[in-house]
Amino acid sequence: MGKLWEKKTKPDPHVIKFTVGKDYILDQRLVKYDCLCSIAHAKMLNRISVLSEDELLGIVKVLKEIMELDKEGKFKIEIQDEDSHTKIENFLVQKLGDVGKKIHTGRSRNDQVLCALRLYYKDELKEIEKLVNSLIASIKDFVERYKKVKIPGFTHTRKAMVSSIKLWGESFIEALRDDLKILKSTFNLIDQSPLGTGAGYGIPVLKIDRNYTKKLLGFKRVQRNPMYVQNSRGKFEGEILSALSMIMYDVNKLSSDIIFFSMGDMGIFKIPEEFTTGSSIMPHKKNPDVFEIARSKYSKILSLEMRVKMVPLNLISGYHRDLQETKEIVFEGFDTVKETLSVISKVVKKLKVNKERAKELLTGELFATEQVYKLVKNGVPFREAYKIIKEKYS
Amino acid sequence: MGKLWEKKTKPDPHVIKFTVGKDYILDQRLVKYDCLCSIAHAKMLNRISVLSEDELLGIVKVLKEIMELDKEGKFKIEIQDEDSHTKIENFLVQKLGDVGKKIHTGRSRNDQVLCALRLYYKDELKEIEKLVNSLIASIKDFVERYKKVKIPGFTHTRKAMVSSIKLWGESFIEALRDDLKILKSTFNLIDQSPLGTGAGYGIPVLKIDRNYTKKLLGFKRVQRNPMYVQNSRGKFEGEILSALSMIMYDVNKLSSDIIFFSMGDMGIFKIPEEFTTGSSIMPHKKNPDVFEIARSKYSKILSLEMRVKMVPLNLISGYHRDLQETKEIVFEGFDTVKETLSVISKVVKKLKVNKERAKELLTGELFATEQVYKLVKNGVPFREAYKIIKEKYS
Amino acid sequence: MGKLWEKKTKPDPHVIKFTVGKDYILDQRLVKYDCLCSIAHAKMLNRISVLSEDELLGIVKVLKEIMELDKEGKFKIEIQDEDSHTKIENFLVQKLGDVGKKIHTGRSRNDQVLCALRLYYKDELKEIEKLVNSLIASIKDFVERYKKVKIPGFTHTRKAMVSSIKLWGESFIEALRDDLKILKSTFNLIDQSPLGTGAGYGIPVLKIDRNYTKKLLGFKRVQRNPMYVQNSRGKFEGEILSALSMIMYDVNKLSSDIIFFSMGDMGIFKIPEEFTTGSSIMPHKKNPDVFEIARSKYSKILSLEMRVKMVPLNLISGYHRDLQETKEIVFEGFDTVKETLSVISKVVKKLKVNKERAKELLTGELFATEQVYKLVKNGVPFREAYKIIKEKYS
Amino acid sequence: MGKLWEKKTKPDPHVIKFTVGKDYILDQRLVKYDCLCSIAHAKMLNRISVLSEDELLGIVKVLKEIMELDKEGKFKIEIQDEDSHTKIENFLVQKLGDVGKKIHTGRSRNDQVLCALRLYYKDELKEIEKLVNSLIASIKDFVERYKKVKIPGFTHTRKAMVSSIKLWGESFIEALRDDLKILKSTFNLIDQSPLGTGAGYGIPVLKIDRNYTKKLLGFKRVQRNPMYVQNSRGKFEGEILSALSMIMYDVNKLSSDIIFFSMGDMGIFKIPEEFTTGSSIMPHKKNPDVFEIARSKYSKILSLEMRVKMVPLNLISGYHRDLQETKEIVFEGFDTVKETLSVISKVVKKLKVNKERAKELLTGELFATEQVYKLVKNGVPFREAYKIIKEKYS
Repeated sequence: MGKLWEKKTKPDPHVIKFTVGKDYILDQRLVKYDCLCSIAHAKMLNRISVLSEDELLGIVKVLKEIMELDKEGKFKIEIQDEDSHTKIENFLVQKLGDVGKKIHTGRSRNDQVLCALRLYYKDELKEIEKLVNSLIASIKDFVERYKKVKIPGFTHTRKAMVSSIKLWGESFIEALRDDLKILKSTFNLIDQSPLGTGAGYGIPVLKIDRNYTKKLLGFKRVQRNPMYVQNSRGKFEGEILSALSMIMYDVNKLSSDIIFFSMGDMGIFKIPEEFTTGSSIMPHKKNPDVFEIARSKYSKILSLEMRVKMVPLNLISGYHRDLQETKEIVFEGFDTVKETLSVISKVVKKLKVNKERAKELLTGELFATEQVYKLVKNGVPFREAYKIIKEKYS
Repeated sequence: MGKLWEKKTKPDPHVIKFTVGKDYILDQRLVKYDCLCSIAHAKMLNRISVLSEDELLGIVKVLKEIMELDKEGKFKIEIQDEDSHTKIENFLVQKLGDVGKKIHTGRSRNDQVLCALRLYYKDELKEIEKLVNSLIASIKDFVERYKKVKIPGFTHTRKAMVSSIKLWGESFIEALRDDLKILKSTFNLIDQSPLGTGAGYGIPVLKIDRNYTKKLLGFKRVQRNPMYVQNSRGKFEGEILSALSMIMYDVNKLSSDIIFFSMGDMGIFKIPEEFTTGSSIMPHKKNPDVFEIARSKYSKILSLEMRVKMVPLNLISGYHRDLQETKEIVFEGFDTVKETLSVISKVVKKLKVNKERAKELLTGELFATEQVYKLVKNGVPFREAYKIIKEKYS
Repeated sequence: MGKLWEKKTKPDPHVIKFTVGKDYILDQRLVKYDCLCSIAHAKMLNRISVLSEDELLGIVKVLKEIMELDKEGKFKIEIQDEDSHTKIENFLVQKLGDVGKKIHTGRSRNDQVLCALRLYYKDELKEIEKLVNSLIASIKDFVERYKKVKIPGFTHTRKAMVSSIKLWGESFIEALRDDLKILKSTFNLIDQSPLGTGAGYGIPVLKIDRNYTKKLLGFKRVQRNPMYVQNSRGKFEGEILSALSMIMYDVNKLSSDIIFFSMGDMGIFKIPEEFTTGSSIMPHKKNPDVFEIARSKYSKILSLEMRVKMVPLNLISGYHRDLQETKEIVFEGFDTVKETLSVISKVVKKLKVNKERAKELLTGELFATEQVYKLVKNGVPFREAYKIIKEKYS
Repeated sequence: MGKLWEKKTKPDPHVIKFTVGKDYILDQRLVKYDCLCSIAHAKMLNRISVLSEDELLGIVKVLKEIMELDKEGKFKIEIQDEDSHTKIENFLVQKLGDVGKKIHTGRSRNDQVLCALRLYYKDELKEIEKLVNSLIASIKDFVERYKKVKIPGFTHTRKAMVSSIKLWGESFIEALRDDLKILKSTFNLIDQSPLGTGAGYGIPVLKIDRNYTKKLLGFKRVQRNPMYVQNSRGKFEGEILSALSMIMYDVNKLSSDIIFFSMGDMGIFKIPEEFTTGSSIMPHKKNPDVFEIARSKYSKILSLEMRVKMVPLNLISGYHRDLQETKEIVFEGFDTVKETLSVISKVVKKLKVNKERAKELLTGELFATEQVYKLVKNGVPFREAYKIIKEKYS
């Protein structure tokens, strides 16, 4: 069986390969969500009398079968299937005949894919929320073990004032908690049901019930305007990647700090050897590759954010195939953030602090500000006190 | 009087010019907020007995005087003043002598500038919220005038199904309302008081009262961790610019549509002539420059967002002078968005629709989907109905 | 056998998986180049008497065997092999024993991978040069068929002056020829041998002959400074992606034009049906997906360029594992550009022009400028002539 | 006198302000180049008999007068003048009457502004070439003073092998020399005369002589296709900013190194005190602000590059007002790079090295690779030697 939009003229295979791109691979993770959307959609079609009770039961049974097959890795989308939508509809028609041909009533692939994507995004955002919480827990663990240790605090990459493991660790905990808020706002923004808006101009003739599918699928609200549904493709993805970039911003800084504080000449942090790598020429090296790669992923997420926000640039309203690209971009974003958070959490938990070295590095100039404030306490105006102490360091 | 950090060795003037950059110009808009922060800070210093009642009164009086002068454009920061902080402190010392030298007790320029910036950001975000609401109102006006007019709806830049001015206009209203939510989340995120965190490692010896200044300045909560306060520089700015980019995303699409629908061969929209520009060689041209420039501003905001998110990349925790750059970036972002929204609101309100031309463009193929659904209504399975109608267009 | 840098402590498998990333997949395309570099390196080691004639022959024989296996797809790098370097060295040791252990003398994986990458980059740039030339040939074909057809020329997305298929097509030919120059400059820039610079600080004790390997490998010159060799990682890749972005800039504009001129209400260009796709809801649609996807790839290349230029940001000199990311970025860039050029060339060649429709669209206002110049020819000063004609269009 | 494209309907002042933007300020630096182009254009008009000998003399005289006034700062473009073209043409008409009205014969503002911009770009690129050479000279100076000093070389931000001031400095010299090549390629690419292509569709009726103006203006070649001339706007600017980004890439790394090597705990480099700045709270600080700001400018140039490459995204061929934005972007790019190179050259020249500290930091592990090679020299296969030495560091 062929594409859902099959035409008389045989399409050119080179063009098909180029336009399908990686869709057939990417869509594998959408099969489950596509089935969930189709089940809700079928229930709604039954409610408005487009599908009979029996037809509904048949369709739901086959869709659940597909989800089962998919879970076991037996529902593989191949390049000739084009994507998950085609594969699923074809499977339904094969199993149910004419009944299968009714499933696409009252929807377009445009709202169908957005529906599946939104459900998928919501699951991924929840997963990432968990991973952020697990990184917070790892940092807490680490802080708990070393909280009393004082370390030098830096500004302008040079010693400034006394800091501590507690201050250091908690700065990231507070940062990540802000990220959780950003994640939540993003989740709330995209938690809108696009199902029932067709190709961006609604469904003519038929009276469909968008509130019902919204409820069945657990969306917070209906995204009303069909054209906005299409125009929000790229925009919502931009919001998601912006949220992810904030997490990676903090991971970048955390990693930068760990690399800096663990270098030989600093030696305050110690990355356990099983988490380091060596060099093919320098036998002494114990490199912090895991943090370097984690650090670099911020650039990756930033460029993905930029890309997803660039694709729809200067295009008029309504769907354009360009927007298909946004799928791969967000998937890559989710995968990257999940992998990074997961490995970082593990290593941060095991991080060690060299207390002696920390002490050695608490050199005099770190206490200059304290000395100023001791004078202030004795009544010297701040600016005077500052000048007096400055003399000592000139 | 000199810089707050003046050293014995005379700094090189070329270096001073390069490092001050545009700060002395940019800071002009911070004078007001810097004074507000200093007033709150002084009240807190009085509360913890660092300043006497009289000293407080003196300081507050001079700070209010500065705000008054600034309002009248008489408190000009010059390049030799370096920035608003230095200029204000010097002014205080000049007027109050030793008392002025106490104002910097318990703070650093690092938390001081962040405090002023946050207040300023909050005001700008509120201003932009107003402008978004005013654009929504303009679109509503426009829709009200032409709501019954049907127009062609496009996908893939070609005619798809019947749309309408109402559908078109409301898509942007719903989009902009989502933007208002994003703005609000951003506002909530940054609504944290940084005052009292010094240079990122707290204030030693002195017991300052951060909750008190928070309350006085109207912040929603205290940003606890001093190092996070510094590390959030760049991050919060990134969030702001990401929110602005979402607004400009919608402005870009709105402008793209208006340019497209108003071109001669389409002719549905008409931009009143007083809002168009001509050509120096082609006497017939009436160009939509205002929407082209509005459209291009999305690229500007995107690149500013990228820049502000890039500056802190791979830097360790704690302040770096690199972060100073973020000030100019956000200022440019605010100005650009405000100017664009303001002019666009004005023109959209006056936009005209050529009803005859709209009718002419409602050609047959726009109704193909409707024909499919009429068959579906008569019991033909969707996919069959689709194939029957397809025959007619092959 | 293990990693080249194997340590006593067993590395954590999660960390290994994260740090290896996709290297084991990406490196498959480097096997050939890695062998070529190793052959040249071995010959040089023989020349400076580190390898005997027999050892050299043994090594070269096995490396050629690997190249043969690789060509047949039988030298698969698995995740436990880490990357091509490890896999190849292990294979050599397995086949040759102690002799295999000598191949890494006088080099590090740092210069080794750069050497293989440069050879690979050079091949890809040559391949892309061919594809650009083939797109030029396709456009020429198209222009040849329709060169006499006049079409409207647009500025500000509205009709400006008379243009022609010839003018249109030749604009892209001239643009692509500039791209060929940019490609050539990039090729020349990166055509430098990095082999023999070790990990960025040269090879101690041993006197290696860098000119000899340079000559054997066909590099134009030696990249002298070992630290610059490492620091140019990211920079050279940035240059490559910048060159690719210029090609995609032109492809973006070409695609935008074709989409615009082929939409129903314009109808000048016609994309043969076998190169279009349909809609799952609208039976009449013939969509230009191939050009929409081609158009979107400019955003992809731009974001890859940005990413590769961002990764090394703010890092000190010398190799960092972050730079490993640049490999994937450039590979993705090459693949994207090659696929796009190849499919676009095919479709452009078959593009049709509807001459009647083109004529219909040559409406009066397109000749306004011509009318001005006719007056000018009769002695009216240009600005006067402009004003006279302008009257007619007000 | 009014705009060159003035229409009957009075344009809205708010729209005028928005569309003019900063053009009237930016164009100040184009006055000179605009006059040069106009002089060449007038000479060509005389050659093809559009202007008489007397008319030509009159026009050239006034244009030279404008250049003189401009040099003295007395030819100020005000907002009501719109831009340099309008101001100059109005001035000509005021002085010469009808003769002035002839200067715009055979050109549009589109090719006129591109002509002025190209000449300006060429001058700026030459200026930047000089500044790069001057930075090279400063580094040479520095290397000369300290060339024998050994310092630790880093990979993965940890000690790797022995390096030296010579190796360090020369890496940047070689890098900057590559940048000079890139600058030269960019110069060659844009060295094309756009004059005589009108608004993108040529000049009708009149036979103009493009080779003649090309020769007069010193362009290397004529940019033939009029539509490509317009389409290359954004593209050439992208090439320029990409070249600038490569320079700033090296400045970023140079600055990162200097900040790193001059921090207290490293102490190898010393930035003379007159080039450092202090802190308002910490009296001991001597901060490397000049290098931090220099470092941050890479992000600025990168985001400008991105922006200029984004503006034309997805737009059809032919001029769009969006492209006007590219002017400001490139100007900002040139200014930023010039300022940064100039100040950095000055400071690098005066940089000091603490030889004792450098010696102290040459700790044992830096010699591990050397020890391996000593074993290799005695006949131990490299991989064996590596393992033997590795034992010592485990």
